[in-house]
Amino acid sequence: MSSRLAKPALQWHKPPLDPDPDATMNPFWSQIAHELSPYVPGEQPRITNLVKLNTNESPFGPSPLALDAMRAALADSLRLYPDPEATELREALAAHHGVKAEQVFVGNGSDEVLAHAFVALLKQPKPLLFPDVTYSFYPVWAQLFGVAFETVPLDDGMRVRIEDYWREAGSIVIANPNAPTGIALPRAEIGRLLKDRPDIPVVIDEAYVDFGGESAAPLIADHPNLLVVQTMSKSRALAGLRVGYALGDVGLIEALTRVKDSFNSYPLGRIAQAGATASLRDDTYFRETCARIIAGREAMTRELTKLGFVVLPSSTNFVFARHPAQDGAKLAAALRERAVLVRHFNKPRTAPWLRITVGTEDDTRRLIESLVDVLTDR
Amino acid sequence: MSSRLAKPALQWHKPPLDPDPDATMNPFWSQIAHELSPYVPGEQPRITNLVKLNTNESPFGPSPLALDAMRAALADSLRLYPDPEATELREALAAHHGVKAEQVFVGNGSDEVLAHAFVALLKQPKPLLFPDVTYSFYPVWAQLFGVAFETVPLDDGMRVRIEDYWREAGSIVIANPNAPTGIALPRAEIGRLLKDRPDIPVVIDEAYVDFGGESAAPLIADHPNLLVVQTMSKSRALAGLRVGYALGDVGLIEALTRVKDSFNSYPLGRIAQAGATASLRDDTYFRETCARIIAGREAMTRELTKLGFVVLPSSTNFVFARHPAQDGAKLAAALRERAVLVRHFNKPRTAPWLRITVGTEDDTRRLIESLVDVLTDR
Repeated sequence: MSSRLAKPALQWHKPPLDPDPDATMNPFWSQIAHELSPYVPGEQPRITNLVKLNTNESPFGPSPLALDAMRAALADSLRLYPDPEATELREALAAHHGVKAEQVFVGNGSDEVLAHAFVALLKQPKPLLFPDVTYSFYPVWAQLFGVAFETVPLDDGMRVRIEDYWREAGSIVIANPNAPTGIALPRAEIGRLLKDRPDIPVVIDEAYVDFGGESAAPLIADHPNLLVVQTMSKSRALAGLRVGYALGDVGLIEALTRVKDSFNSYPLGRIAQAGATASLRDDTYFRETCARIIAGREAMTRELTKLGFVVLPSSTNFVFARHPAQDGAKLAAALRERAVLVRHFNKPRTAPWLRITVGTEDDTRRLIESLVDVLTDR
Repeated sequence: MSSRLAKPALQWHKPPLDPDPDATMNPFWSQIAHELSPYVPGEQPRITNLVKLNTNESPFGPSPLALDAMRAALADSLRLYPDPEATELREALAAHHGVKAEQVFVGNGSDEVLAHAFVALLKQPKPLLFPDVTYSFYPVWAQLFGVAFETVPLDDGMRVRIEDYWREAGSIVIANPNAPTGIALPRAEIGRLLKDRPDIPVVIDEAYVDFGGESAAPLIADHPNLLVVQTMSKSRALAGLRVGYALGDVGLIEALTRVKDSFNSYPLGRIAQAGATASLRDDTYFRETCARIIAGREAMTRELTKLGFVVLPSSTNFVFARHPAQDGAKLAAALRERAVLVRHFNKPRTAPWLRITVGTEDDTRRLIESLVDVLTDR
């Protein structure tokens, strides 16, 4: 470990001192139920003709092979419990990523996989480190499971600097590409982190990696402390099915399995297992849809830049953009009035920014038209 | 609270003192990952021509309406996240049970619902009470979430005695009907418990209630500390879909929701929500299949009794039976050799017993033939 660099200011987090006053009135709640500050997902409204660019969903449907496989699973056999070990799915994931099935863990969306990783791996006597601007579920899991943590500020370019993680820590979680910035670190940077931190568990959350990032999965063979988490919600267009997974050393996977088998033996139903497995067998569809989303992102970035937006370089299916002359919250609200939903995070460092999902060409056209409308104050 | 009755011996549980020695060798595991003793579900083998009576699955398929609704949900819309609040499903459950939608919580199987109840409600400064012979996941959740607990022995007839719960406690969970005994308490007994314990959260786990038990759901209106948990895995033949739910006072449901939103915002996928909702609309199919299982249980009980088995009076879709002249583990193994799977729990009080699911008439015939074969030592 090196201390060559000046340490940025760290923040130490505790449960909130003032829980919801209404909450404290229910005598049947546990202490932790009082203290929680739950994650707030992007809204899922039922507005017709909505351009929904707020939750990073794919504009395309799942692979037709996945739909066929799920149709075949819709049978009387649903009376039976699913395979608690999801053997077939784990074998398909192993083949896809070039690892052994014993190196694969699956769960009810990558949120559940990450939650189990907090309990099984990231909860250590020393604090967990993660960026100050990142997936906002990390501090929520830390609070739920009593994991001490410190946030490490992104640099002025909203980038993760690996040097800033050379400090006293019990574990590290980094989203790569990061969200909501969309910026990716090259695999070599993750390799550098692992070289310097062979002593503690490191989780790389790759929810968006298929849109231009470099997966750390090839580093697993040399790093028994590395867990790579991915999801089928984004690049495989299966957000509605709830399937996520982790890749890592057999020892790390065993820890996750112990927690899973102490929480819910059957997290993935029969249809989810069938659909996810078949999706992996349709590599052509996967590559084509990812390529189209990447092309759509570049087109959207050009259009936003023309309108005066500052757009961070994205390796994901969304962009993080701000307009020098506009307030982020007001811009999001004005778009919402025009039936265009984008995500705004009302925190100091992210307040000027909008996170905008890459949709279809038509979605982008309507987004840009609405922005022109707002910016020209018509 | 009364102390009229002699207190039975209670056992105080702590994490095991000797964790798995192999486990302690992985330096990246959290302390809790080392300490866990995970739940072991009934096996899900792939043996052809198997009579599978080990995991209390329904011998009938799900409602055709549920299959139709799931087929309709198999579409490009799977690219979108599901409704995080499962509004339609919660409204259907509310209508079915005569409560408001705000009194309904849904999760990824009743195991997930119960896990959240341990965190949100049952984790109290004073110990949780539950029977010594009951669902063996309770002590596992208690260990995972650090919930102190004491087990209360069943009486000599393997029955829950409400009087035994009149003692110092922080919370109570009782399976009713109990598993693996199959014995149900009348609703009036649960009412008596609630009358005596208005001060602490009480969870009634009604996984098997639709096979002859009396639900405590009508008591919710008068008892803001009562949470009733049910599942669609057994009586609705949807074990492969993973849907469970809880009914209770708005305050209790809010605590569960806070924990859920701190763990996984989207526990139920779009297909699961659609199938579960439609299943509730097919009351005729539900009643008919439950009635057939109850009739099958009575027939199986008669046959087992003829063979010399002691069979506890069951209000579930399984029976708990022992043969005075046979060892439970050996009997289960001998049946397995004959491709008949039943469940055996290798603990002191349950060692002589087998838990046998009610299958089809054909399943029962094969079970009885195999037992005759074993008992006559052919």
